[in-house]
Amino acid sequence: MNFKVTILGSSSASPTTNRFQTAHVVNIHERLFLIDCGEGSQIQMMRNNISLARINHIFITHLHGDHIFGLYGLLSTLNLDNRKHEIHIYGFSMLEHILNDFLKYFGSEFRYEIIFHAINVRQHKLIYEDKNITVETIPLKHRVPCCGYLFREKYPELNIRKEMIKRYRLSLAEIARIKEGCDLMYGDGSIIPNKELAYMPYTPRSYAFCSDTEYSKKVINIVKDVDLLYHEATFAHELLKMAKQTGHSTTVQAAEIAKQANVKKLIIGHFSSRYKNLNPLLDEARSVFPETYLAQENDVFDIELEKFK
Amino acid sequence: MNFKVTILGSSSASPTTNRFQTAHVVNIHERLFLIDCGEGSQIQMMRNNISLARINHIFITHLHGDHIFGLYGLLSTLNLDNRKHEIHIYGFSMLEHILNDFLKYFGSEFRYEIIFHAINVRQHKLIYEDKNITVETIPLKHRVPCCGYLFREKYPELNIRKEMIKRYRLSLAEIARIKEGCDLMYGDGSIIPNKELAYMPYTPRSYAFCSDTEYSKKVINIVKDVDLLYHEATFAHELLKMAKQTGHSTTVQAAEIAKQANVKKLIIGHFSSRYKNLNPLLDEARSVFPETYLAQENDVFDIELEKFK
Repeated sequence: MNFKVTILGSSSASPTTNRFQTAHVVNIHERLFLIDCGEGSQIQMMRNNISLARINHIFITHLHGDHIFGLYGLLSTLNLDNRKHEIHIYGFSMLEHILNDFLKYFGSEFRYEIIFHAINVRQHKLIYEDKNITVETIPLKHRVPCCGYLFREKYPELNIRKEMIKRYRLSLAEIARIKEGCDLMYGDGSIIPNKELAYMPYTPRSYAFCSDTEYSKKVINIVKDVDLLYHEATFAHELLKMAKQTGHSTTVQAAEIAKQANVKKLIIGHFSSRYKNLNPLLDEARSVFPETYLAQENDVFDIELEKFK
Repeated sequence: MNFKVTILGSSSASPTTNRFQTAHVVNIHERLFLIDCGEGSQIQMMRNNISLARINHIFITHLHGDHIFGLYGLLSTLNLDNRKHEIHIYGFSMLEHILNDFLKYFGSEFRYEIIFHAINVRQHKLIYEDKNITVETIPLKHRVPCCGYLFREKYPELNIRKEMIKRYRLSLAEIARIKEGCDLMYGDGSIIPNKELAYMPYTPRSYAFCSDTEYSKKVINIVKDVDLLYHEATFAHELLKMAKQTGHSTTVQAAEIAKQANVKKLIIGHFSSRYKNLNPLLDEARSVFPETYLAQENDVFDIELEKFK
């Protein structure tokens, strides 16, 4: 049961010769979710053997070109690929107008529907749910309305301890209730607690995506204890002032958020094109939060299943 | 004195893992001209060490996404790069509305001006001229209004044969007139013909860009004798019917145009994503016109100077 993140682009505003602009694909139980869609995202998906047809939900953080200019090409290619089923796009309300203008010029032959979901980027709120996951917004602090997204695996169905079926001669109805978390209760008032009868097969996993944002303490509570946090780190810490001015974060600030939120692993990205060598940025972040990694093109971050504690 | 063409993208509607969409950069005497601007053009320019800042003129053939979706990112990056001087964009009139919508959402901080030139794509007409070159439209036959562009070097200034300066004791005024093509005339009515006094340093060069189009005989006369012809060849010749239906050409048709127009060299491109190996397409075109080459990403076609005959 996959929970993995593929990095399509790691550059900030300007791309470079080897860095595309922001886009991540999250694969949770073989459902694919695209977060942001910088120019060239469709090519990057092809290069990573990610089927464009399997993207049904696109989450856009904000309306700067380096996060959305890949939408035009992607949406056009989906139509050329004969897509018939709808696609859902989530983002700040103005994106609906941008999409409508795009469709006006380029969508006359589209055979599939784009369903737009306007997001209140100022609220931390559940915005998507299916049988396996939930997605919540993470209000961010940027020059334009902007939010991140938090993907959480739902609690899985409990597994019955097989030896208990025999020991307590469990009926199918009892097994179903125990799987839902109920204790086993007898007419004489005696109780076998659920924990003795069943167990959680694994710990639900989580991924938080925070780009673009200046250092914001409010983020910490929302991303508390996640398995994997992506936090932008556009600049080295010596450019703290510029980070603040442009609504971005430094390596150290991203690492501070990770540390204070007690996340398991941090990936940093959205690197300014001024940095040819990213290792000094990594070292800087690791000095605060050792479990930091660079988000680089075509990297895959796999959140492995862990036993429930 | 350069006259060279760099291929940024060779794919048709859908990009592939290694083929970007249409865009060529023409360098004539170190002035750079961009023709079409598929998604990822700015990255491809960076990869080819082509300075974005040096592009002042962009020629758009038609308003299908695979020829213009790179404009958004390119125009945005120019602003981030602190561009102050205007850029000229040539294309079908509707492009002005597309650009205005783009500027409405993304151009509020632009510090440079976009000057749009509406093109009548149905007429073969001079649309641009500077001291070194002219650009003419080439009406094409596609599903939407579409034209190609023909770049011609102007006739260079004549070179004086040095030995003639001494022999005829030429004054500066006489030299200037001879360079303009005049004969040397004496009071006694005797004439020294210009050809004896001066020579054309090289033959003016030319490049014609024809994409997207079905086979169109009208193109032949316009691109007659050019040094380098780019003609789309979206399909192998077995898909002739599909080519016709979609407003495109086959390999053989592109080669037929080249042959009948007596061009020196043909490059084919805009390949359908169905073709992984392009060599069969090349072989097919070469069976009709041997001097055919594939337009592939990052290829440079240099039109070398030749003595004037």
